Amino acid sequence: MFQTFAATTHPDQGPPRLAALRARMAAAGLAGWLVPRADAHQGEYVADCDARLAWLTGFTGSAGFAAVLADHAGVFIDGRYRVQVRSQVADCFAPVPWPEVKLADWLADHLQGGIVGYDPWLHAVDEVEALSRALALRGLTLQPGANLVDAIWPDRSAPPDAPFFAQPDDLSGESSAAKRARLGADLVAAGQSAAILTLPDSIAWLFNIRGADVPCNPVPQAFAILHADGRADLFARGAKAQAVAAHLGPDVALHPESAFLAAVAALTGILRIDPKSCPQAVADAITAQVARAPDPCLLPKARKNDIELAGARAAHLRDAAAMVNFLAWLDDQAPQGQLTEIEVVRALEGFRRATNALRDISFETISGAGPNGAIVHYRVTEDSNRPVQQGELLLVDSDGTTDITRTVTIGAPPPDAAACYTRVLQGMVAISRARFPRGVGGQHLDALARAPLWLAGMDYDHGTGHGVGAYLSVHEGPAGLSRRSEVALEPGMILSNEPGYYREGAFGIRIENLIVVVEAPHLPGGDSHRAQLGFETLTLVPFDRRLILADLLSDGERAWIDAYHARVLAEVGPKVEGAAREWLRAACAAL
Amino acid sequence: MFQTFAATTHPDQGPPRLAALRARMAAAGLAGWLVPRADAHQGEYVADCDARLAWLTGFTGSAGFAAVLADHAGVFIDGRYRVQVRSQVADCFAPVPWPEVKLADWLADHLQGGIVGYDPWLHAVDEVEALSRALALRGLTLQPGANLVDAIWPDRSAPPDAPFFAQPDDLSGESSAAKRARLGADLVAAGQSAAILTLPDSIAWLFNIRGADVPCNPVPQAFAILHADGRADLFARGAKAQAVAAHLGPDVALHPESAFLAAVAALTGILRIDPKSCPQAVADAITAQVARAPDPCLLPKARKNDIELAGARAAHLRDAAAMVNFLAWLDDQAPQGQLTEIEVVRALEGFRRATNALRDISFETISGAGPNGAIVHYRVTEDSNRPVQQGELLLVDSDGTTDITRTVTIGAPPPDAAACYTRVLQGMVAISRARFPRGVGGQHLDALARAPLWLAGMDYDHGTGHGVGAYLSVHEGPAGLSRRSEVALEPGMILSNEPGYYREGAFGIRIENLIVVVEAPHLPGGDSHRAQLGFETLTLVPFDRRLILADLLSDGERAWIDAYHARVLAEVGPKVEGAAREWLRAACAAL
Repeated sequence: MFQTFAATTHPDQGPPRLAALRARMAAAGLAGWLVPRADAHQGEYVADCDARLAWLTGFTGSAGFAAVLADHAGVFIDGRYRVQVRSQVADCFAPVPWPEVKLADWLADHLQGGIVGYDPWLHAVDEVEALSRALALRGLTLQPGANLVDAIWPDRSAPPDAPFFAQPDDLSGESSAAKRARLGADLVAAGQSAAILTLPDSIAWLFNIRGADVPCNPVPQAFAILHADGRADLFARGAKAQAVAAHLGPDVALHPESAFLAAVAALTGILRIDPKSCPQAVADAITAQVARAPDPCLLPKARKNDIELAGARAAHLRDAAAMVNFLAWLDDQAPQGQLTEIEVVRALEGFRRATNALRDISFETISGAGPNGAIVHYRVTEDSNRPVQQGELLLVDSDGTTDITRTVTIGAPPPDAAACYTRVLQGMVAISRARFPRGVGGQHLDALARAPLWLAGMDYDHGTGHGVGAYLSVHEGPAGLSRRSEVALEPGMILSNEPGYYREGAFGIRIENLIVVVEAPHLPGGDSHRAQLGFETLTLVPFDRRLILADLLSDGERAWIDAYHARVLAEVGPKVEGAAREWLRAACAAL
Repeated sequence: MFQTFAATTHPDQGPPRLAALRARMAAAGLAGWLVPRADAHQGEYVADCDARLAWLTGFTGSAGFAAVLADHAGVFIDGRYRVQVRSQVADCFAPVPWPEVKLADWLADHLQGGIVGYDPWLHAVDEVEALSRALALRGLTLQPGANLVDAIWPDRSAPPDAPFFAQPDDLSGESSAAKRARLGADLVAAGQSAAILTLPDSIAWLFNIRGADVPCNPVPQAFAILHADGRADLFARGAKAQAVAAHLGPDVALHPESAFLAAVAALTGILRIDPKSCPQAVADAITAQVARAPDPCLLPKARKNDIELAGARAAHLRDAAAMVNFLAWLDDQAPQGQLTEIEVVRALEGFRRATNALRDISFETISGAGPNGAIVHYRVTEDSNRPVQQGELLLVDSDGTTDITRTVTIGAPPPDAAACYTRVLQGMVAISRARFPRGVGGQHLDALARAPLWLAGMDYDHGTGHGVGAYLSVHEGPAGLSRRSEVALEPGMILSNEPGYYREGAFGIRIENLIVVVEAPHLPGGDSHRAQLGFETLTLVPFDRRLILADLLSDGERAWIDAYHARVLAEVGPKVEGAAREWLRAACAAL
């Protein structure tokens, strides 16, 4: 079993640690200290040794940060974690709604001058620059220093040292040498001598390697320098990179991680850094000229090649069969009233293991029954575990190289739930069937997914979708579907499409498919001079027909859903047997 | 009659003028010279003396620019003007699709090094900075200089000198002193000593004055300096400002326009300039420190106060009656087959004059029959004038302190036109009935208007809507409805909502209402913790029911249209009489 259900933190752990941190701050003459969720690689998942925010406060969400002052301590969390944070942190930590409240304003409200300290490995250049400027206007100073949390963390674990392994060319679809050559040519064209890489999934993609340094994401923690001639230097702790030395070949030099800053300092010419992810500590080491630009791997990695897309389609078909077996089992078992949220997770992982292709889960399965479904990023623990009861909704968000969410009713749905489900589905369908010109980004399409909910005075406090990696991070930049996703969509980009609706104390609804941007076929009667893009849906699992109010649907929406279900039956039907196949046939009937 | 129908330019005028300009360029050692549409105030309309682009090339569109080299001359035009430009410029000018082709790339493609000259009064700081940087990367130099077009324009008219007049406080809703005091306080809070104002509609709003310097927009051409203490300096040619001296009061000092640069140079402290609109020539004169920020009038001006909104509602009701009289007349006259596009314009202006409240038209009425309707910004001339024929669509886009477009069929609609009209209407309705949270900008909503067309492989090459001034510019920043409109929508902002569809050689469709952002009432069943914004529709004129395919509409769309028509009948019905009232009753019947 990959997933565990123990609560990893407790609110009681916070107060003594907070007191110890404040003593260190006082000794260092600091009025404040920042504790981000991030590590030096700005990834979504962090190793245990980097889980400083959870260790200090008890809050385990995937985003957020704390600001500690002598008399106040704020835990800044976004809309997804408003409910969760209240159960995880002690009263000495005040939850602060972010980004509504800006860190600089909060600090200025609680401090009369003074120095706020931070660890320059954990904050990116843009962030430090913006915060420094904002604090200066408010009479405060931002100052880098050695990490004060690490200094009071006696049993902090060692950094991870799992060996890297190769992603063969027949799965990646392009050799590392070819990738390095074309990115190097881009550097030459931009007049840049080298690019500094600090993002693990960029390094994974560029070198066709994977790692096991953080939970759920198969990325290698390392740093790299890509030179304009296509050669590269890779910096990794201990012996992590030795196993891929032959795979990397003679044009990639291996170095200990400790040699990274000195190597950066020795570089000449014009160095490309991504100010959104490059740690301030790395930028401070540079002696050459700097060009600020996005990490050169981001866009090429987001545009999946044909081999990667074929792999994604095969993975989705395999996972769809496991999901159908699971959903058929759930419909059979749930009426007997014996299931709990944890048993649901265990069953799903079991069905997935039966495919013999599960390498790890990409994140911990969310299994939220009734009111727990309204906690957007709920993770079931032994403490929170709840029976799955009749008349409730069950929200299951899970992953196995895919990312899928389905919400099902256990017995008759609770009041209003079907109308809400239908509106969420309408939004998901609006994205799925959208056609649009090149140049359109996720920021322009996000409202299509929300409009049906908005019209009823409802909404959800998370993005509509995120980029998805090819056997890499399940949350991948730079493209996405949200009001902040400025990157133009391009063929090959894989995104999640997951609108939701959460009624606190009652139920949660989310429906998620993965989709890939494709060139849309020309339509008869359409403008012949307009090329359009559209989405191909990768996920092949039916929606819960018991929650669809067909009368609310437009003709176009209904036709899309019927066509999708027909495709699911045709493609997944041959992969399941017996009762599951019967269940699938009924689930895929036309509305 | 405000509108005239003579063609103001001819393609033949271009070649000799181009030759003269090239001779001046050669004498000055310049490889290129830029000819923008803009004047020093970056407005949409320019005085005759500033119509350099039209004088040189013949192109009269409201946006675009030319780049002249020794061997090439490009006229850069956006999607609205692709058709029009071909009929207005001689072969020596090559139309260049913009923004698809970037000016810097085009220059680099046609030049091997050299100096490109420009008039620093006609280009804003941001534009000069970006172009300088882009050209430097391509081995080219950008250099300011005296205007070479003016030097070869023997009969160039004098700059306008129409006297300014006061906008009384009972129409503006807030005195100039109060506006200057609150904007001054914002400057103090930002640590800025003064703001430099160069936009005529900002100056009109701040000082509650109007002018008659450019066609269609009642704005005063002037420059101003707003000091942090609320005092101001106003710089205007000749005696233009004398008539409003008493209205302006002792805290506004009047100066000749020629004193502006010296006054700017003498300022101390931190000066606020808007790099998007401040001419490079003004920025070059500054000796003090500079803070770059949006013109401080932009957002306050866009948020209309209650007095301004009441005025807008009254104007729309008045104009709706004129439009209904016009449309009823058109339906009566058109079958007799004697009308031309120009007669349609004359009739509409006549119905508007009959209201006795028409001060001027805000732009020249567009009256496009059949294929002329597909020319997005078509302006009928004696040369292009076309009979209004049976089986054609007629597109009429017009204004009288309002901005409204209706498309009607003359007899039976041409093939496919009703389906296209219905999709355009669906997009317009989607915006009209949208509800959305604070923070959403026009960039996020634009796709709602396009989605029905996108689904059929169609689109339109212009924004969905623009900001609208209160007895000011009919096109007003900073808010709008387009993929480039980043400003969050706020209550009081008036916008146009005008999706369209244009089939070249066949017909054009555009439907336009003005809408104002309002706080949306809470909906039963909606989330109680979510405040939403929405739109109130100001325009009160029926759509053409003969072009609506009701079967294509969703229940919600149909209900919105029926409710809108019922409101039009209730509010406008009492303002029209006889046959027009009968026509209105039929036009507003439920679908």
